[in-house]
Amino acid sequence: MQTYSGPISRLIEEFSKLPGIGRKTAQRLAFHVINMNISEVKGLSNAILEAKQQIRYCSVCCNITDKNPCSICSNDNRNEEVICVVEDPRDVAAMERTKEFRGKYHVLHGVISPMDGVGPDMIKIKELIERLNNESVKEIILATNPTIEGEATAMYLARLIKPLGIKVTRIAHGLPVGGDLEYADEVTISKALEGRREL
Amino acid sequence: MQTYSGPISRLIEEFSKLPGIGRKTAQRLAFHVINMNISEVKGLSNAILEAKQQIRYCSVCCNITDKNPCSICSNDNRNEEVICVVEDPRDVAAMERTKEFRGKYHVLHGVISPMDGVGPDMIKIKELIERLNNESVKEIILATNPTIEGEATAMYLARLIKPLGIKVTRIAHGLPVGGDLEYADEVTISKALEGRREL
Repeated sequence: MQTYSGPISRLIEEFSKLPGIGRKTAQRLAFHVINMNISEVKGLSNAILEAKQQIRYCSVCCNITDKNPCSICSNDNRNEEVICVVEDPRDVAAMERTKEFRGKYHVLHGVISPMDGVGPDMIKIKELIERLNNESVKEIILATNPTIEGEATAMYLARLIKPLGIKVTRIAHGLPVGGDLEYADEVTISKALEGRREL
Repeated sequence: MQTYSGPISRLIEEFSKLPGIGRKTAQRLAFHVINMNISEVKGLSNAILEAKQQIRYCSVCCNITDKNPCSICSNDNRNEEVICVVEDPRDVAAMERTKEFRGKYHVLHGVISPMDGVGPDMIKIKELIERLNNESVKEIILATNPTIEGEATAMYLARLIKPLGIKVTRIAHGLPVGGDLEYADEVTISKALEGRREL
């Protein structure tokens, strides 16, 4: 496909390395860049570089941030007695959108997954345990995803943290709001039954 | 959605300005960038800026290029007596992939479209006519798309160029190879009939 001149080919190449961007989309994006005005192009180019250069892991919660500690960890209005443990930074954003949770977070950056060769020491579990020794934490909410790996990681953490005398809870599983019993899978339904509450 | 720190939000913003990239895809791309290593990120960032800065229109054929005249216009092995007129640079790439055409090109950068307010003076028609006056062109192949605007542009060009004593041809319309008569539209079928040839 060396039918385009050098810089365009290189740009198509770079775009098509991104996840979910195929050859055709990369081409369309590259031609769009050529037709953007130069200040827009500089904006895009700089945003990419700056995001990479300025984003660090928060030394407390391991969430991504441009200042250390992050805005949630350094916010005194948030309850530091409750820590919500999630798999990745997008989960923090999802929790924050609910505006329900006023505690702090801990981002694991992955889940334990022997199949993919990810052991407990390869995600941010050590950092979490260290926080528990120093801070006055009363409750850990395990909000890893309801997948096999997410459950296994939650179980592992529960066994690790309970002996420290801290309350460990797991987010509820059940039918999603607006969901339909008829189309729900068996595991979700049995979880919903298991977690039933008196009205 | 100010749940992400500044540089990430800005990057998501920039990505979602691109065509066909929604909020969710922009987020996924932004997080991918964070996890790429710094040299890959620099590669992407530079490729974007360089494509914009180095790509010019060829002063002869108006195709996009990083050197002037472009590699096709400056290639002496190509027949300069035949010029294939296309709508945009991607069409040149599509023609080149066939490896059939050994003439030169002219890129209009659009088609005449009164509905969108595009008149004949807003695409590279003047440049094409100038070439015809200076160069020893024997045939013009009109390869604009078989759309209403593409046809109208081809008609317009034919009327403009024929009086100069140059042969003007139009690419054939008909059933695509591997296509199915049953599923072809009426216009395509009637074009295919019209263009039938003796075997």
